[in-house]
Parts: sequence; structure tokens; C-alpha cells
Amino acid sequence: MLENKSQTRTELSTLGEFKLIEHLSQFVKLSQSSTIKGIGDDAAVIKNELEATLISTDLLLENVHFDLTYFPLKHLGYKAAVVNFSDLLAMNVKPRQIIVGLAVSNRFSLEAIEEIYAGLLLACERYGVDLVGGDTSGSQAGLCLAITAIGQAQQSDIVYRNGAKEHDLICVSGDLGSAYAGLLLLEREKVEFLANPNMQPDLQNNDYVLERQLKPEPRFDILNLFKEKNIKPTAMIDISDGLASELLHICRESKVGCMLYDSKIPIDSTACSTLEIFNISPTVAALNGGEDYELLFTIPQSDYDKIKDSHDITVIGHIVDENSGCMLVPENGAMIELKAQGML
Amino acid sequence: MLENKSQTRTELSTLGEFKLIEHLSQFVKLSQSSTIKGIGDDAAVIKNELEATLISTDLLLENVHFDLTYFPLKHLGYKAAVVNFSDLLAMNVKPRQIIVGLAVSNRFSLEAIEEIYAGLLLACERYGVDLVGGDTSGSQAGLCLAITAIGQAQQSDIVYRNGAKEHDLICVSGDLGSAYAGLLLLEREKVEFLANPNMQPDLQNNDYVLERQLKPEPRFDILNLFKEKNIKPTAMIDISDGLASELLHICRESKVGCMLYDSKIPIDSTACSTLEIFNISPTVAALNGGEDYELLFTIPQSDYDKIKDSHDITVIGHIVDENSGCMLVPENGAMIELKAQGML
Repeated sequence: MLENKSQTRTELSTLGEFKLIEHLSQFVKLSQSSTIKGIGDDAAVIKNELEATLISTDLLLENVHFDLTYFPLKHLGYKAAVVNFSDLLAMNVKPRQIIVGLAVSNRFSLEAIEEIYAGLLLACERYGVDLVGGDTSGSQAGLCLAITAIGQAQQSDIVYRNGAKEHDLICVSGDLGSAYAGLLLLEREKVEFLANPNMQPDLQNNDYVLERQLKPEPRFDILNLFKEKNIKPTAMIDISDGLASELLHICRESKVGCMLYDSKIPIDSTACSTLEIFNISPTVAALNGGEDYELLFTIPQSDYDKIKDSHDITVIGHIVDENSGCMLVPENGAMIELKAQGML
Repeated sequence: MLENKSQTRTELSTLGEFKLIEHLSQFVKLSQSSTIKGIGDDAAVIKNELEATLISTDLLLENVHFDLTYFPLKHLGYKAAVVNFSDLLAMNVKPRQIIVGLAVSNRFSLEAIEEIYAGLLLACERYGVDLVGGDTSGSQAGLCLAITAIGQAQQSDIVYRNGAKEHDLICVSGDLGSAYAGLLLLEREKVEFLANPNMQPDLQNNDYVLERQLKPEPRFDILNLFKEKNIKPTAMIDISDGLASELLHICRESKVGCMLYDSKIPIDSTACSTLEIFNISPTVAALNGGEDYELLFTIPQSDYDKIKDSHDITVIGHIVDENSGCMLVPENGAMIELKAQGML
């Protein structure tokens, strides 16, 4: 639909697994000093330069996490990398390497795999991450990506989910709900497209929300800001499942409660317009839509001055004691208990 | 078929992802001193105790790598862990941690997932490996396991594929072809079973080859022997795809050739009997059958005395210069070029 379909089609069966890996490897460039051995042996080898290694794996499955009807393969590769970078950023650690497991059925050509890799490698190049290994496999059904992100840190720099304290400020980077607004648009166009394959998608003037869904960016810049301002959040998580779910994770792990102010949640105006068309409250989209890949974190009140001038960080509430519960405070009306609920 | 089906069935939808992770986490015990943070945050955190970290990911997909008609789920979990342990052992490094990505469709119950985890954790416990994180996801089709194994080593202890030198001895642990013999039996019984679901499987007296297929063991003991005898192989790889394919990897990476002696390849007598039934030459099964998870390695001739009394290591050939090519030497007759070809 949005995809630029390549004209040539090379069947994967003409290459086999080893030739495929060899072929893809030629596009991989290494830039990290800590990468000792990348693709080409039984394991990647990484030099231990700091006290600890951080590792996270995410699975992305076709028709569960993405729909190839409207998700261009290059964007998919890019987003898959970003989603995994984001997990390490949420620990206050920059990813340095990734390992890519890829399973595809024979409906995918070599050119399709190249597109996915082009996206993966674009994200790697932009953020200085090395692709150091992987596994490719056949699949009986659909596309499956398993990405492992690897980083290193001094132990004292790592931020967990469990350090939020009473009176801490709850902050979020960027804006929320836009990725969900983009998804709604794409899903609508898919329905129209399936009904009439000759139709032209009506996606004009929606660049921002579409990009938030199709090509999210990892918040390396927020970690730079923390370093520059000498901030170490007391707790942090990235927003993949929606603000409500992530804030509840922090509260549960930190054994605290929270007051989240509805009116403070940053929502982009074009996202609001889109959500209005679908009759969905922007707050609900921010709380439950997910896939924003923004950072949600808590800081002591004494750090407020360090972030108050940043246009990219918003204070949306504060931490309270555990017995006070986790509450959403609307602009008008009574507090309601914060609950995590999926939108899809 | 071989599986002990549990009587209760709890639908995964009654739990959701977070409850599922919480539920499975209770069975996980940590024993490695290097594990700082296991399951429960955005990434696992591992203390860097040696110079380098080694990481490897493998994908295992239903109906590509295993068939649940005859593969008990607990065995599948065990084997999935072993396959990944084996990748690190092939670098001369013992795995210390694994991360497990698991995608399942709604035909799997909580009890089924518990069985897979029971197998994974049994392998972890037996070999002192910590399960430190993971991702669980829905799947539209079948079961997908993505396992990442993590280990640490001093750089000088790591063995790559590319260090084999002319005149080195080619050695292999254990015996080869048995896992493939086991697979043939299971596939035969599957065909019979599908034709007549009331039939009883005829698998008597085949314990060894079935166990080699369903429950391979990782060769930690060979690494212990290397340490004890002060051996550092010049090159090493584990046998997942068959002896021919793996030996060719070593030769290509090391830029050497090889002479492999047909009659020296260690093959178990019960495997021979099974293969005979199927009219398959034991040599062919060893060369191309795969899934033996034995270690294939090269050592200088001067180390021969250190391994000659080990019942578990066999010298099967030697390394020659690159121009001499990669040759299989039959007991009678002319040398033939070694080729990697899949059996399935």
C-alpha cells in the first residue's frame, strides 16, 4: 500500500541459509570499539568495557505486532531496531550492539529481506549500534523477528523500575497517543483498500501520526540530556504498552502509588484531530494506545529546575505512598483508579 | 504421542502477558554470581567479570525445527536450551545466562507453556545457567522460541572457527548420526499414527537414538576436559547441521582444506541398526543428518597425547592446505570432494 515494491524477485530457496547470511553480511559495517567479533561464528564477542552488560530480547510477529498490508518492510526493520534500543534506553543505557533472528516463509523474496535489513541497518547507523549476529530460518507462517539489544554501563548509572519514591515527579518525554492515532488511520485505509483495491489511500496531512506509528525514534537525546544536566531518574520504563500500563509497572515495582493529572499528559494537536475523527478521547489513546516509545521516568522534586525548561519533557504527576493507590486526576471531577487496558 | 497430556487446561487469555510472566517467574531460581538483575525490568543486567561477553541467538519454529506431533513440550524446552548452550560451548565458553522469547497461539494452554518452561529450567538447573529474561507474545500460527545464550571469557580462551592450521588433527566428541536415526523413527511413527490414531508407537529398544533426538546433552564435559588437559583447540564449531557442513565452515573460515576419514567417524551401533532399516548409510547420516550437538574441533598434532586416551573424543582426519581441497577418504576407493547437503 505504502510500499515501493521492487521489480525483481529472487527466491530465497536459490540461496540457502549460509549464502543468505553471507549476502546480508556485506551490508553490515561495524563501528563500536567494543565489538570484537560480529557475524560469522557461533556467537558474537563483545569486549567488557564497563561494569555490567545489559541485554534485552523482543519478539515481533506478523499479524500480532505488525500488518504487512500497510507496514513497509524497511520501516518494519527500522521500528524493530528502535523498539529494542528503547528497552535499553529505559535502563539509562545506550545500546551498542544488536543480534537479529529472522524467520520468513517462502512468500518473502531476497529483495524483501534486503528491505528489512536496510531498515535495521539505517537505525543502527543513525544511532551508532553494531549488528553483530543473527539467525535466519524458514517459517511455515509469516514473518518473525527476534531482536536482542546489548549495552554496557557502570552499575551506578543503571536505572531500574523499582526506585520511585514518594513525592517524586512523574515525567514523560515527547507526546503520547500519536502512534495509536497513526495506527487507526492505517487500519481504516486497510479496510477501504481490501474493499476496493484500486482506491488511493487518504493519508494526506497526517505525516506526524503516521511517522510516529511507522517510524518511531528512540530517545537517545533524553539520555544525553540526563547526562548533561546530571540527572539520574529514580525509576524509568519505556512506553510500549501505553502510559497506564507502564506507570503501574513502576508503581508496583517501586511499591508506591501515583497521582496522574489528565490535563498534563502531552498530546500532539494533529493526533487530537485524528483521534476526534474516530471518537476516541486523547487521554484514552495516551493511556492505553501504546507504541509511543517515549521514556516515562521519575525524578526527585529537587531536580525539577533541571528539566523545567526542556520542551521535550513534561511533568504529568507525582508519586504518593502505596496506600493512596494509583489515581488518574481529571481536570473536573473525582479521581478514578488508574487501570491498564489494551485498545486492540 | 509420547506426551503426557495434562488433564487441566487454563486458557492463556485468562492471564494476559504480565500475569503469565509473573506466573512463570516463580519457577525461576538464580544461581550465577554474575546475574545482577533477572526477569522483571526492561533488560537483564549481568556483571562483567571477565574480559569479554559472548552472545548467541537461535530461533526454533514449529514445523520447521520440531514437530509437536511427537516432540513432548518438556523435551522441546530442554532441547531449545541445549541448542543454545552448545553455540557458546563451541566458542570454548560456558553459558551462564539465557533469555527466552516465546510466541504461542491460543491453541497452547498455560499448562503447555509450563511444560516448555519446565524443560528449559531443567536444562538451566543441570548446567548452572540462569534464565534472566524474556518476552512472551501471541502468535497467529504455531510456536516460536527465540533463545539467547550469554557467557563470559578471557579473550585468550575464546576459540573461533578460523584458527585451524595445516597438519592439525580434526576431532569430534561423542558419536554422530544418532539424532538423525531418532528423527527417522519418530517420523515413521508419525505417519503410522496419522493413518491409524489408535496404534501404539513401536519405539522399543531405541532409547539411545530417540534420546539423542529428543534430549541431546550439551558438551560441558568436553570443555572441562580441555581445561584439565590444558588444551586450547585451534578452531571449533558445534554440529547442528551435520559434520560435512560444519567442517566446511571451519575450512572456509580458516582458509585450509581437510582430509576426513570415512571409517574413523564415530557412529553408535544402535544408530547403525536403525539407519540400516531405512537404507541410509551411517556415513551419510553423520555427514548430513545434523542435530548431534557434538563439538567438532582441531588441535595441533603435538596435543594428540592429551586426547588419545579419551573415549569420548575421536580423531577423524587432519587439516591440509587450502589448495588440496576438502576431501572425504573412503576405506576403499578414491577420495571424493566433501559437500554439505541437507537430508530433509
